[in-house]
Amino acid sequence: MRLPSPDSASPSAILLIHCPDSKGIIATVSEFIAKNNGNITFLDQHVDAGKSVFFMRIEWELRDFAIPEEKIGEFFDVLIARRYNMNWQLHFSREMPRMAIFVSRLPHCLFDILSRWKSREIEVAIPLIISNHPEMEAVACQFGVEFAHFEINSTNKRDQEQAQLDLLARHEVDFIVLARYMQILSEEFVSHYPNRIINIHHSFLPAFPGAKPYHHAYERGVKVIGATSHYVTAELDGGPIIAQDTIRVTHEDSIDDLIRKGRDLEKVILARAIWHHLQRQVLVYQNRTLVFS
Amino acid sequence: MRLPSPDSASPSAILLIHCPDSKGIIATVSEFIAKNNGNITFLDQHVDAGKSVFFMRIEWELRDFAIPEEKIGEFFDVLIARRYNMNWQLHFSREMPRMAIFVSRLPHCLFDILSRWKSREIEVAIPLIISNHPEMEAVACQFGVEFAHFEINSTNKRDQEQAQLDLLARHEVDFIVLARYMQILSEEFVSHYPNRIINIHHSFLPAFPGAKPYHHAYERGVKVIGATSHYVTAELDGGPIIAQDTIRVTHEDSIDDLIRKGRDLEKVILARAIWHHLQRQVLVYQNRTLVFS
Amino acid sequence: MRLPSPDSASPSAILLIHCPDSKGIIATVSEFIAKNNGNITFLDQHVDAGKSVFFMRIEWELRDFAIPEEKIGEFFDVLIARRYNMNWQLHFSREMPRMAIFVSRLPHCLFDILSRWKSREIEVAIPLIISNHPEMEAVACQFGVEFAHFEINSTNKRDQEQAQLDLLARHEVDFIVLARYMQILSEEFVSHYPNRIINIHHSFLPAFPGAKPYHHAYERGVKVIGATSHYVTAELDGGPIIAQDTIRVTHEDSIDDLIRKGRDLEKVILARAIWHHLQRQVLVYQNRTLVFS
Amino acid sequence: MRLPSPDSASPSAILLIHCPDSKGIIATVSEFIAKNNGNITFLDQHVDAGKSVFFMRIEWELRDFAIPEEKIGEFFDVLIARRYNMNWQLHFSREMPRMAIFVSRLPHCLFDILSRWKSREIEVAIPLIISNHPEMEAVACQFGVEFAHFEINSTNKRDQEQAQLDLLARHEVDFIVLARYMQILSEEFVSHYPNRIINIHHSFLPAFPGAKPYHHAYERGVKVIGATSHYVTAELDGGPIIAQDTIRVTHEDSIDDLIRKGRDLEKVILARAIWHHLQRQVLVYQNRTLVFS
Repeated sequence: MRLPSPDSASPSAILLIHCPDSKGIIATVSEFIAKNNGNITFLDQHVDAGKSVFFMRIEWELRDFAIPEEKIGEFFDVLIARRYNMNWQLHFSREMPRMAIFVSRLPHCLFDILSRWKSREIEVAIPLIISNHPEMEAVACQFGVEFAHFEINSTNKRDQEQAQLDLLARHEVDFIVLARYMQILSEEFVSHYPNRIINIHHSFLPAFPGAKPYHHAYERGVKVIGATSHYVTAELDGGPIIAQDTIRVTHEDSIDDLIRKGRDLEKVILARAIWHHLQRQVLVYQNRTLVFS
Repeated sequence: MRLPSPDSASPSAILLIHCPDSKGIIATVSEFIAKNNGNITFLDQHVDAGKSVFFMRIEWELRDFAIPEEKIGEFFDVLIARRYNMNWQLHFSREMPRMAIFVSRLPHCLFDILSRWKSREIEVAIPLIISNHPEMEAVACQFGVEFAHFEINSTNKRDQEQAQLDLLARHEVDFIVLARYMQILSEEFVSHYPNRIINIHHSFLPAFPGAKPYHHAYERGVKVIGATSHYVTAELDGGPIIAQDTIRVTHEDSIDDLIRKGRDLEKVILARAIWHHLQRQVLVYQNRTLVFS
Repeated sequence: MRLPSPDSASPSAILLIHCPDSKGIIATVSEFIAKNNGNITFLDQHVDAGKSVFFMRIEWELRDFAIPEEKIGEFFDVLIARRYNMNWQLHFSREMPRMAIFVSRLPHCLFDILSRWKSREIEVAIPLIISNHPEMEAVACQFGVEFAHFEINSTNKRDQEQAQLDLLARHEVDFIVLARYMQILSEEFVSHYPNRIINIHHSFLPAFPGAKPYHHAYERGVKVIGATSHYVTAELDGGPIIAQDTIRVTHEDSIDDLIRKGRDLEKVILARAIWHHLQRQVLVYQNRTLVFS
Repeated sequence: MRLPSPDSASPSAILLIHCPDSKGIIATVSEFIAKNNGNITFLDQHVDAGKSVFFMRIEWELRDFAIPEEKIGEFFDVLIARRYNMNWQLHFSREMPRMAIFVSRLPHCLFDILSRWKSREIEVAIPLIISNHPEMEAVACQFGVEFAHFEINSTNKRDQEQAQLDLLARHEVDFIVLARYMQILSEEFVSHYPNRIINIHHSFLPAFPGAKPYHHAYERGVKVIGATSHYVTAELDGGPIIAQDTIRVTHEDSIDDLIRKGRDLEKVILARAIWHHLQRQVLVYQNRTLVFS
């Protein structure tokens, strides 16, 4: 799969689809694009044989495409989606999503994301950094991003979350990245951004959910540690996993060593999840992800 | 991708295609299958943008398919392949390929392949094991496979290779696996099995081709060692790579340790290549492979 | 660390020690060996700073060592161990341990261990294979190892385990490897072989203990699967971990694919644990292992 | 091995030793420390059996150590090193080395190092960033580090390198990190910082040395790509390797994908090498490293 750099590349449309499996879906969809003079640059499909569900990601160049951008969704829905009872999303590569970062006191993921953004590794707008602590303001400032501090305690949480939601809305934020944000978001908050809040958890879930996973990993004497990025749902550390990896450790590694080695993994795995999300490669179905990459 | 177990699964057809890139190929091919009542169970495609070449692997169930098996190739060629100037291969999942194993004195890959075969992890016929040394006869015998010993020296090599080719032909061997066979096959020999001889080389090629790669790796002080499985071509250790992986080592590892740790990698990487080959997932183009899995 | 091949190498002694941390332990132990003309070929130590415990593995050549083999333990105990309140084990490289394999119906780990044994990758005696099913008798027979079938049900478990223990005792078995043995051993049985029963579990523990971990991994939508070898304790899949690793998977992998890919990991991780155990590299302390390698 | 955080930890001394192998070295060195009331917190040794060379890294707490810091080297040399013909280095954990970064146009390694430094992941002074291009001045400025631009061409190289050396001397730089610096340093330059210039090369050396390794990797069709950090010597990409790792890629990855995926590896592997160097864990012997960690 090639994802062209924004200037050189022709803009493209991306369809993510799932529906009951049946014969002829690929032919029908690809013919719809071909007949209207679209050039398919990516097609990947998957069938969940047990559940009889069909999944597809298809991307095509918009140059010379017969249907105008703003009409594609309508035409696709009427001509195809209804027939197959499809659940579908349509995206355009030229849209630049707006991302907010939530952070607490640990800077490594924040630094990493902002560095990738400044280097234009990721094409995204970052209008806002939110924290429950004041320490990261200097980093936000260093990279020229607005910083908002919301102190959270047991009595003000509901109000503070509402204030955060208002601020996010004002900045027209599309999705949120929790870059080691050490506060559990309420179910109510999460419901505003379904499959649009990406968390990094510092263990190979489902092992060691919740607080202090490196300490628990040390106590259990595991020989690998891991990191997991996932969409946030109402269940703590239970949302659909986007990316995940592990590294080997030994008895010589103290808890501090696990924390140190884990940081590199957290940065890479969170960045990988952000990348997949931005490329519209992720499809969520029944608390699992399909990542078409 | 699901590869069904042989009894439960409906037989399927597999097409591997490459051709000059153009609009509409996916639509045309998938429509050909759909219109004839085939159910596509796998489709993956790739475009080499630099070279403007289109590649695809597509698999569909033969049950209820309107075109009889023996006619599919002809119909596809006339109706589609010629129009797009396609290079294509057609396979059927119910064919069971016949594989010969070449081995010298090291038993680990041989044991591993035969164990997978006996356990029915791989569905293949193994009519023959060939060696330039007598030691592995006991292993062949233990697994009930015919063993042929061909002593090779500088004067008899040409004749012995001819005798091997005759024996292979008599056993109707489709492809050959070199399971640590420490003899260079002549260009002439190789030409009889193009992209049908799989070798395992005990380094991460292109580093350390030729003899004694673990010794060279030790001398160079690398921190990873690797294994590479590839199709054999006239160029020593220069053929298209099918599978490859590495593991980390340290200064504490002696050459013997590298050899010991490398063995596990060799077994796994060779088995992975055999698996891809048997599933018809490998397409060779200009000395590189595409592995659709 | 070099582990010499059995013929070329001089025999060596191996000490595994743990004790309360204090100054001078390394100096005292290494001087004990040096003064008696032993050549240290391996020394690795570790301090658990939190618990203030010192751990060490030290190996030296016995050639020219002033103290006769059968007296080393006594001398070390009187001269050193008591002073530091040490917990210690002494082993000799020329001892060849006796290992029994327990297996159920899946052959891959059994084949792998027997192949390594036949190839002399591991120096061990294998007098006995025990199974709760009859299927693996053919494999045992193929490798020339005695096979004993013990059908287990809810009423006969206690008696059958006693019969197994008797048989193990008769064969003077030192330790047991559970090569995908699908029966939970009773606490009573386990108590006869403390830290001497090695299990392979097909997940990255502590995730997915118990039955059907690949199914649970699939349901949870993880992006890595793993395997864990550990010593068996009374707690199911809760014993000290010896070796562990993971591989990445994707949404394309069905449960059958996870099972297939996991097999290779299980073989390698179980073999790695057996290797460490045989080299006397493993020290267990408070349900965690130190692996000096 | 525990590397204590700077405030909580007692300062320690670190000895790196190599010498002809003989009996009693460990006993002698550890007794020297113990008798003078030093508490050993780390000891790791290695014997190159083929070359009969002994290597050791030993670290002990200076609190209560009987010999004053400035005399330890002299005492060790007279009492021990001469007797065993040792090559040795002595370091103190409280020394904070001074590091210069050389960079060209690619920001990812530079951002990563500076972020780790700002986050106090690495304890080092960074007085200076040198570049052959002006672009990275903004990043240097953002992190508050002096930036010096030296345009290099075929006629001025010798003079510019001399000017760089002068500047480095003025800043009392101990070692240099080439964070994707796309200029070959002259042998003369390198001779001023033997084993004190760390480079990151974007391939798994010795494969693909020199320019454009990702392009060569793509052309060769490898299934893994890698990154290698090494000390710079007169031979291009031929110096002793400190750290190295690989990741798997597929035929779907374009050269741009390899570059993108490789960046993460480069960052981690370079950071790992810097870490080992700063902890005085690296010993170079005959163009290979021992990394005691």
